[in-house]
Amino acid sequence: MPRFFSEKPLADSFLIENSDAVHISRSLRMKIGDEITLCHAGVDYFCEITSIDEKTVSGKVVKSAESKSEPSVKLTIFQAYPKQDKLELIIQKTTELGVFSVVPFISKRCVSRPDKKDFSKKLERFSKISAEAAKQSGRGIIPEILAPQTIDECIKRLENYDLVLICYENEGGKLAEIDFSAYKNIAVIIGSEGGFEREEVEKFVSAGATKIWLGERILRCETCPISITAIIMNLTGNM
Amino acid sequence: MPRFFSEKPLADSFLIENSDAVHISRSLRMKIGDEITLCHAGVDYFCEITSIDEKTVSGKVVKSAESKSEPSVKLTIFQAYPKQDKLELIIQKTTELGVFSVVPFISKRCVSRPDKKDFSKKLERFSKISAEAAKQSGRGIIPEILAPQTIDECIKRLENYDLVLICYENEGGKLAEIDFSAYKNIAVIIGSEGGFEREEVEKFVSAGATKIWLGERILRCETCPISITAIIMNLTGNM
Repeated sequence: MPRFFSEKPLADSFLIENSDAVHISRSLRMKIGDEITLCHAGVDYFCEITSIDEKTVSGKVVKSAESKSEPSVKLTIFQAYPKQDKLELIIQKTTELGVFSVVPFISKRCVSRPDKKDFSKKLERFSKISAEAAKQSGRGIIPEILAPQTIDECIKRLENYDLVLICYENEGGKLAEIDFSAYKNIAVIIGSEGGFEREEVEKFVSAGATKIWLGERILRCETCPISITAIIMNLTGNM
Repeated sequence: MPRFFSEKPLADSFLIENSDAVHISRSLRMKIGDEITLCHAGVDYFCEITSIDEKTVSGKVVKSAESKSEPSVKLTIFQAYPKQDKLELIIQKTTELGVFSVVPFISKRCVSRPDKKDFSKKLERFSKISAEAAKQSGRGIIPEILAPQTIDECIKRLENYDLVLICYENEGGKLAEIDFSAYKNIAVIIGSEGGFEREEVEKFVSAGATKIWLGERILRCETCPISITAIIMNLTGNM
């Protein structure tokens, strides 16, 4: 059944007036009586179309249920800003895999350093990539992508998580040694191409982060968040 | 220490006459007395340069050891041929993560269907991507990339593996239910954008493959091999 996102929770009826209406009527050629799923904040609303033209689609909510595709853990990736279009790949792939949010940040060795103002156009693009990947993969939420943070801003956010990991190529424990069953809000902090300065790592550790070492093979900075998301979804029974 | 691959095993000395010599002398500006690592078939040879110019670099082997970066399992990805340049991304990322070999094959729903002859130029490019990723990530081998196989050719190859998994979006067990400790040669079969026909899956199952289901979220075809490689490396203690 085709899935779309709703900007607000639904009660008995729905009304779509954005580009999804064009998609539903023209591309999918759906008709009165056809069924679609609308998602909002992890809830799937199973709907029936009762009225349709090229600009609006409306109908009734038949039933609703918690989205089966949302993982049992909320995983946020704190990603030091990478070069080129690597953040696009990271957002697309981690969204498919079940990430809750992606927080780009600027560390000392970041080559690409957009400020928040420059970033506003990019954020629009990143949010679109996240929404598309969420739709395609059948997610129940669209992961939120934040504007680039400073390390201090990241550290303030860490109190929202019950487990904070930082990937460090020089040392750290193994992911397999962590008992994930106790944690529901997990943050993973990942460096850019050049990795982290030691004092940056220690700053995060002082704020409660646990160092993780991903083994002998050196992963490119975009491979790390994709792999970590897959592994954590597997270790928490979500994949 | 800079790492390069040797085409043959080494005894007491080494001689480099290919483009690596230019890289070592001009880009890295290495000198007599400097150390490099040469790798062949999972063995690291720690070497000292005794003679260097822009076309040849030679020297002595100081010691050798099994490459620490090679995983304890040999994982082969059988990948139904995807569209666009997705196979490049799959080869690069799975090489970083520790794959042993990538075998593209043609299934019914493949949109892109190169024959073996058309493929020879592409194979050169894919092998280069694999070699570059192996060098960058510190691998002890360069994963082999094969020319596209038919499903029957794939099935003949499956007798080389002690565990064969096939990813199927409709049904299958979970990766976490498998005790990987008994297996050293693992094959994972993955579909293209359109997935597999049921009879293709059953053909692989009759040849000994076990169906695996990756959960509620629908992964793009290139996300699947990258995620599976990361998860298997994690579950086998290699990441």
